[in-house]
Amino acid sequence: MTKPLFVQKYGGSSVADTDCLRRVASRVASDVRDGRNVVVVVSAMGKTTDRLIAMAREVHANPNDREYDQLLSTGEQITISLLSMALHHQGIDAVSMTGAQAGIRTDASHTKAKIIAIDPKRVQENLDRDRVVIVAGFQGVNPDMDVATLGRGGSDLTAVAMAAALKADRCQIFTDVDGVYTADPRVVPNARKLDVITFDEMLEFASMGAKVLQSRSVEFAKKFGVELEVLTSFETKPGTLVNEAEQMEDVLVRGVTADKNQAKVTLRGVDDTPGVAARLFTAVAEAGVNVDVIVQNISLEGHTDISFTVPREDVDKVQICLKKIEGVNFREELYDGSIAKVSLVGVGMRSHTGVASKVFSTLADLKVNIQMISTSEIRVSVVIDEKLADEATRALHAAFDLDQGPEPA
Amino acid sequence: MTKPLFVQKYGGSSVADTDCLRRVASRVASDVRDGRNVVVVVSAMGKTTDRLIAMAREVHANPNDREYDQLLSTGEQITISLLSMALHHQGIDAVSMTGAQAGIRTDASHTKAKIIAIDPKRVQENLDRDRVVIVAGFQGVNPDMDVATLGRGGSDLTAVAMAAALKADRCQIFTDVDGVYTADPRVVPNARKLDVITFDEMLEFASMGAKVLQSRSVEFAKKFGVELEVLTSFETKPGTLVNEAEQMEDVLVRGVTADKNQAKVTLRGVDDTPGVAARLFTAVAEAGVNVDVIVQNISLEGHTDISFTVPREDVDKVQICLKKIEGVNFREELYDGSIAKVSLVGVGMRSHTGVASKVFSTLADLKVNIQMISTSEIRVSVVIDEKLADEATRALHAAFDLDQGPEPA
Repeated sequence: MTKPLFVQKYGGSSVADTDCLRRVASRVASDVRDGRNVVVVVSAMGKTTDRLIAMAREVHANPNDREYDQLLSTGEQITISLLSMALHHQGIDAVSMTGAQAGIRTDASHTKAKIIAIDPKRVQENLDRDRVVIVAGFQGVNPDMDVATLGRGGSDLTAVAMAAALKADRCQIFTDVDGVYTADPRVVPNARKLDVITFDEMLEFASMGAKVLQSRSVEFAKKFGVELEVLTSFETKPGTLVNEAEQMEDVLVRGVTADKNQAKVTLRGVDDTPGVAARLFTAVAEAGVNVDVIVQNISLEGHTDISFTVPREDVDKVQICLKKIEGVNFREELYDGSIAKVSLVGVGMRSHTGVASKVFSTLADLKVNIQMISTSEIRVSVVIDEKLADEATRALHAAFDLDQGPEPA
Repeated sequence: MTKPLFVQKYGGSSVADTDCLRRVASRVASDVRDGRNVVVVVSAMGKTTDRLIAMAREVHANPNDREYDQLLSTGEQITISLLSMALHHQGIDAVSMTGAQAGIRTDASHTKAKIIAIDPKRVQENLDRDRVVIVAGFQGVNPDMDVATLGRGGSDLTAVAMAAALKADRCQIFTDVDGVYTADPRVVPNARKLDVITFDEMLEFASMGAKVLQSRSVEFAKKFGVELEVLTSFETKPGTLVNEAEQMEDVLVRGVTADKNQAKVTLRGVDDTPGVAARLFTAVAEAGVNVDVIVQNISLEGHTDISFTVPREDVDKVQICLKKIEGVNFREELYDGSIAKVSLVGVGMRSHTGVASKVFSTLADLKVNIQMISTSEIRVSVVIDEKLADEATRALHAAFDLDQGPEPA
């Protein structure tokens, strides 16, 4: 009988120091004794990456990407070898592997490499010998045999890709929260942990500022049908499963989330000629800035106002970009860094109407002014004053009875 | 015209922090601007290796060798990438390489691997493009594609082996002393820095406790005819050249050195039957202990006394070994940890007699009791009371006029 195979990913806070490593080793050992095969993917310990980055900055303000990857990849290499030793200490056979040793091949783009293939032969051989395989997250080897790092959220991606390549039964992402909630529990005290959520909902949550999982990993998991579980490494209890919608009842609204890291840019008196919007947003994209919500007013006497939201840390880039943009004339630019985007997400919205109007009336009752609106098939988002975001979140959570368990669609 | 190629090795104290790295980068940059090709081999920064070892001990009292190597090798990987960035900052084209990337292949013995081959193709290609190549010392890749470390003095060995493989013009070992001296300057204030020394003399110095170079690297350099230079990274001045004797005038005595890290073991009343010494020293060797000087007294009524010296830290191992040894009967064992071995080294001794008698008479004048004597073709060593070692060293240094410059043989 084949043992079930679990790929487990432990982030930086779960492996902050050697005490944490021992705790992770105990958890893995217990899974092994329960008859599972386990592949563990780990990040760098605690502040290791920050420390390495600080050293790099001391010798070069803008370090070469290849050398940066060569440097940063040591963080995960330290964790894998120490965790392997900690498992040996518990009497568990284990072997550590760098990204290269685990067969993770990337393209040539350093610091944000893409995984192009995984050759899981060596990992599989070790699993076949009942060994725990500990893989360095966040890294792979590129065609030049150089270490390449995968960029933000890279360790999650390593875990999901490994799970796909090994056809694992589940990919468990251990983090410092115990699952995905109907809302941020710090804002909504009666927020409820979700037992299950669809890939699409998780994607909306991820892109709406919920920090649990990065979109890239969820997209990869969806593409390859990898069942994900988000759970805490600090307690032993089930987390939130992320899988295909067919396996669960559709719900109208799964949760509500607030993104307070957005800023609103408004261009007033824009010459409303064909191609203006294209030129504007091409220039912003080329500056490396992700634009989220866009609103354009009705044109009046050949002029219009355009508002859009961007990550707050990118406002400087937008300002520089607007100074040198060509073919886009406008009267003035306004920046508002005190906004929040509040979103409701649920696959049931696909087949049900009325969610948006209930959102608007709930906020109207609170006298909250809606500055922008954006929707997808399974999401309604509103941009409002940041100061009112928590109150709005609580009101929407209550209005859709999210503390009561899922409302049938 | 081909540029001269220098391989430079900087040890842990020369790369202790990012300030040191910047200083090393300046030095390398200046050599590059002088028209040299440079390969740099570096150790881990300052206390990095100690810190990694401490973490390993926190999770396992006796860590697995493969994982230990996987862990420790990160120390050098951090240095190479940071030094590469520091060179970029000085406008110098540079690329870092791990042992594996530099083509350093080892056997399968972790923590003390032997270099079995170097494939310098990638290093050479980068040198051909006028790049400084920075190689992680102390490590290579074994047939399983795992990182293997070379053990003590491994970075020196990496540098010498790299110099041999690349047919470099010189291998420079940068350290915290500015060369090899006729004696330890802390003991003998008028000790003189040697401009040149032969491989054989350097080997005797190395094995006699002079910490400048490890025997393994000198042997390798001798075997492959790699000219070595020992010099300091803290100043710009020539160091001591180590090369073949033909290039220099033979001297009677090159220097005097004292090894205070030895202990004397004496077995009294040993049954003097054939094979006793063989059994004794085979057992000690199998315990992993290097025996240096051996003295056996004339047998009296079928019994004899045997004395030998071992590194002080290995006395425990010898004690355990003697407890369980079979076929060697003796009355009692004595340990003396307060001895020193003082040695005179010089290739001229090969063809000249009288050095030993001058040593003995010099020590007799000082009323120093000689406990043991050992000689090679180019060395005379005496074991004496540790308390008298400094005085003896100064007296011998003066007796052979070592402060006066080399005495012609």
